Amino acid sequence: MNPIRPVFIISDHTGITAEIIGKSLLSQFPGEAFATESLPFVDSQDKVEDAANRIREAWKVSSLKPLVFATMTEASARAALEATGAVVMDIYGHFLGMMIGELGRPAVAVKGQSHSASDAGAYHDRIDAVNFSLAADDGLSTQKYEQADLILVGVSRSGKTPTSLYMAMQYGLKVANYPLTPENFEHHSLPESLMPYLKKLRGLTLKPERLAAIRSERRPNSTYASLATCKQELDQAYNMLTDVGIPILDSSTRSVEEIAAILRQSLLKGAK
Amino acid sequence: MNPIRPVFIISDHTGITAEIIGKSLLSQFPGEAFATESLPFVDSQDKVEDAANRIREAWKVSSLKPLVFATMTEASARAALEATGAVVMDIYGHFLGMMIGELGRPAVAVKGQSHSASDAGAYHDRIDAVNFSLAADDGLSTQKYEQADLILVGVSRSGKTPTSLYMAMQYGLKVANYPLTPENFEHHSLPESLMPYLKKLRGLTLKPERLAAIRSERRPNSTYASLATCKQELDQAYNMLTDVGIPILDSSTRSVEEIAAILRQSLLKGAK
Repeated sequence: MNPIRPVFIISDHTGITAEIIGKSLLSQFPGEAFATESLPFVDSQDKVEDAANRIREAWKVSSLKPLVFATMTEASARAALEATGAVVMDIYGHFLGMMIGELGRPAVAVKGQSHSASDAGAYHDRIDAVNFSLAADDGLSTQKYEQADLILVGVSRSGKTPTSLYMAMQYGLKVANYPLTPENFEHHSLPESLMPYLKKLRGLTLKPERLAAIRSERRPNSTYASLATCKQELDQAYNMLTDVGIPILDSSTRSVEEIAAILRQSLLKGAK
Repeated sequence: MNPIRPVFIISDHTGITAEIIGKSLLSQFPGEAFATESLPFVDSQDKVEDAANRIREAWKVSSLKPLVFATMTEASARAALEATGAVVMDIYGHFLGMMIGELGRPAVAVKGQSHSASDAGAYHDRIDAVNFSLAADDGLSTQKYEQADLILVGVSRSGKTPTSLYMAMQYGLKVANYPLTPENFEHHSLPESLMPYLKKLRGLTLKPERLAAIRSERRPNSTYASLATCKQELDQAYNMLTDVGIPILDSSTRSVEEIAAILRQSLLKGAK
């Protein structure tokens, strides 16, 4: 068995940025064994020393040099982590210098600007968008569709709700979602409430087998979860949406983040 | 007026990592004017050339050298962006080499591992957690509290729902939330459904003025939104929670991300 290499996520704020960077980079080395520890809010000299000691300790125990993903806005804190001899990867340490050189002015070393509520306007918009998406989830509040940036349509369990919430949280977009049900299919057309907003509509679909598996977790052995029902609903939804020219995205092998990024790009392109 | 400096977020996948890094670094230079353009899914040689041309074009128009935050897993793509002469900051370009040197093996250049559904187990857990948090929002499904990692309590509009959803999405934690209402206060104790789970409970509070402002957006000039009501409810909630030793977090000046990171840390510490 290979020894497990210690990995530290260290930040003077939430650690969200450092965590995402670490995940991106570690994912390029599949098969390696890593033991990750997160140390957020390392925002005083004492805490920095504590963190440095933990790195030294972990190195001694595992005998493998630790990897450290850090976002420390203070140069002295970065230096203290580097003094351990571990591999310290800090976007501030590596990129701030490049930016300062180009911009010709110093950085201000404000902690956690990117995940704080300090940009009050943008932050308010994001929380507002989350509340909108909750209020307009699952076909509710169709009278609010005028305010929506995007309306997701698709059959039950096609991934509309997590996608709506993610887009609201990440991008501050107001995303409503409307479930297409057997009732809609009987009428052979989209509900009246959606018709004025065809440009904002995007369809979500997925493979019938995948949908049947997801529905079966909820209601095992039901007609609702049967492959035949899933297939039929997906076909009907596909026809109904393509009839009026609505783009459809397949979520079978895509994460919520991927779907969100693709949808957002399609909105930006549409706006140009 | 200062000229506006072009900034590009370029990724061969969703661009989420590059976007967060760019935001972190740009936030250290308040007062500078940046015009940011996102180019996700730049995953072919043609698209890389297109992106490089856009950088050159923007540079010509603004006369300021563009900043580029990139996550390109292919070395050739990074080289093509760097050939523009812009300031290219790519975590793969800068950190992969350090990791390869230490790990003694090559990276595999898999695109977008960190935001894909490729780690199916972890991804499933996160979506599962989002569904749990939705099902156990606002005092619903108290019978599911056994499965919860965390139960947030606080008065109406204290930030419970966005925090629950964020923690589910980001950390894969199952977070329920329970609103404390005047009905609870009449009974002078927490509801029975919460009593077996005191260790999982965390309180959210905020400044009465802030709560009154938030509630006023919903129901202007109501008793519900009045400063007197807010003050009273917050006091009662505070007493009720501290009586049984539940930690309380003030969300007045904290973002959802900050609250989530603090709460998660308190869970990890509690587990040790």
